[in-house]
Amino acid sequence: MRLVAFSEELPGAPVTNSELAASFGLHEQWLDQMTGNRSRHFCRLDAAPGAPRSAGDLATAAGAKALSAAGVAAEELEFLILTTASPDHLMPATVNLVADRLGVDGVPTLQITSGCAGALQGLFVARALLAGGLRRGLVIGADTCLKLWPSKRDLKQMKPAEMVNFALFGDGAGAAVVEAGANGPGLFVEHLFLRTVGRGRKPAQIVRWFGADGAQPSEPMGEEDYKAIERHVPEMAAAILAELVSATGWPLAEVDYVLTPQLNGVMTEKIRAGLGVRPEQAVSCVAETGNNGNALPFIQMRRLADRIETGFGDGARVFVATVESSKWIMSGMALRYAQEIRHAA
Amino acid sequence: MRLVAFSEELPGAPVTNSELAASFGLHEQWLDQMTGNRSRHFCRLDAAPGAPRSAGDLATAAGAKALSAAGVAAEELEFLILTTASPDHLMPATVNLVADRLGVDGVPTLQITSGCAGALQGLFVARALLAGGLRRGLVIGADTCLKLWPSKRDLKQMKPAEMVNFALFGDGAGAAVVEAGANGPGLFVEHLFLRTVGRGRKPAQIVRWFGADGAQPSEPMGEEDYKAIERHVPEMAAAILAELVSATGWPLAEVDYVLTPQLNGVMTEKIRAGLGVRPEQAVSCVAETGNNGNALPFIQMRRLADRIETGFGDGARVFVATVESSKWIMSGMALRYAQEIRHAA
Repeated sequence: MRLVAFSEELPGAPVTNSELAASFGLHEQWLDQMTGNRSRHFCRLDAAPGAPRSAGDLATAAGAKALSAAGVAAEELEFLILTTASPDHLMPATVNLVADRLGVDGVPTLQITSGCAGALQGLFVARALLAGGLRRGLVIGADTCLKLWPSKRDLKQMKPAEMVNFALFGDGAGAAVVEAGANGPGLFVEHLFLRTVGRGRKPAQIVRWFGADGAQPSEPMGEEDYKAIERHVPEMAAAILAELVSATGWPLAEVDYVLTPQLNGVMTEKIRAGLGVRPEQAVSCVAETGNNGNALPFIQMRRLADRIETGFGDGARVFVATVESSKWIMSGMALRYAQEIRHAA
Repeated sequence: MRLVAFSEELPGAPVTNSELAASFGLHEQWLDQMTGNRSRHFCRLDAAPGAPRSAGDLATAAGAKALSAAGVAAEELEFLILTTASPDHLMPATVNLVADRLGVDGVPTLQITSGCAGALQGLFVARALLAGGLRRGLVIGADTCLKLWPSKRDLKQMKPAEMVNFALFGDGAGAAVVEAGANGPGLFVEHLFLRTVGRGRKPAQIVRWFGADGAQPSEPMGEEDYKAIERHVPEMAAAILAELVSATGWPLAEVDYVLTPQLNGVMTEKIRAGLGVRPEQAVSCVAETGNNGNALPFIQMRRLADRIETGFGDGARVFVATVESSKWIMSGMALRYAQEIRHAA
């Protein structure tokens, strides 16, 4: 499998720490120091007409950009995959509404429920479909926090376990066009793995949905066990990189780019330093984009493509490590770049 | 790919039309005639301790039964797939909680968001993973309507578009253990396809989820365009069977068993007759189980396995047709049975 073009879609203007702090009655400095994120983007109910308001809107925009970057028409796709934790509805699957809007029809579509491991889950399935004979597909990751915001409640009264979601997370989508075969430019997937880990270990992030009865006082919409994440994510990231080194035979110090897990700016930087990844090797975007879940690794890859084009070029070697802490998943991917690569802003 | 064992899990006692009619202030006869379903099962908030209350509970039970029927230990699985439209949470994916409860760890897990096409979507992905080198997996379909019931409202005041969901649907789970390779007994997948159809055609079923703000008066939890379903599902079912006939060269009249789409008893019977499927060829369960979405084709397959064992045996040929009307998907599968097959009640 070859990743031939990437895209990113971030709704509206960046929301700064100063703006976010004002909404929640927090100190801007606390946000700076606690998260290390400087900004994020949010879908907004009061957004201009036509602006993205849902994961489906974001996914459609990112999908269209990736197709355009690849110079591929919707009719040339042989499958479409969307990974998200925040679908527009329970049914129909958002991927099928996105397909309709992109002009994709008559092909298999799949929507995968995931979080931070979603992008690699989507690529894992794409690789299997390409191995089975399909030739080209589009994999999109998209998430939005919009329905997590209680519009009727004073945000300053929000409990810390709920509020942390907005402090860390953001909205966005990213996509990759993938192709079978070795002919043509792109990032070649040399190794890709995905697995659950830590049987019996409690979920460190829960996001609920509500039904006809609405929210119940006993159940906050979102909960995060930040301490468990701080404890387990660095050790899992180290294990992922060790496995990639072992599978490829590429020493970490000689790998050109490393896409590290992106919980937030502070943790990403800690993990990078702890792994011995040099600053110039690291490709990170969470401090600007916030953690936008399923979108984030695609956005990292789009920015990687920029750096490969301007900096390195042919033969560049890349490791991607993602950790899902909702219920624990480790996933890793090794890529090698050949010839030119195309991407969209 | 070979389907080697099946299971079904239906919560609690069957709910009769007389009981359901009383809840909604309907006439039992109307339910009989409109849906053709005689019963269905529901997860209940007042169920006995330990009884299933969520799609995750149902999926765990069905998964354990299928493993037991196959004589396979959880540790022997190389992947786990869950398809559902009613996950326990948005995050973590329910499949990862089910994996933990089943004792599955260290393998790829995937949760696919789907409805009536979900079972074949799960098998479609399973086939690709097996083709890529994995050897054995478990595919589960599960759904529950529990969160669709408004516990605080008089059900007799429910609008028809919302009420129809309970008239047609039910809760349940089903599963299949799948293996690569041609050695051993089971139902061999000779052909399997899956594709979106009808670009621009509106969704005929929408099920919403609510966030921090809860339900909005403008948005019912569920909506169903029954007329669109009546118009399109029969023609799509005919197209699926025609494609299976063409792909396999098996004349429909000579196929031993046909698993028809299962919206409800009335439409299933109409479709069967319209397709020229003889009553003794048809394997149907919706009149007893209600339409339990992602579970239903697995339950049909479990009952098919019963009939193959007691009736036909080696060489039996099977067509499976499923239509998703939420946003339109057609999918079909041709199976050939070899040697003995194992299954669980």
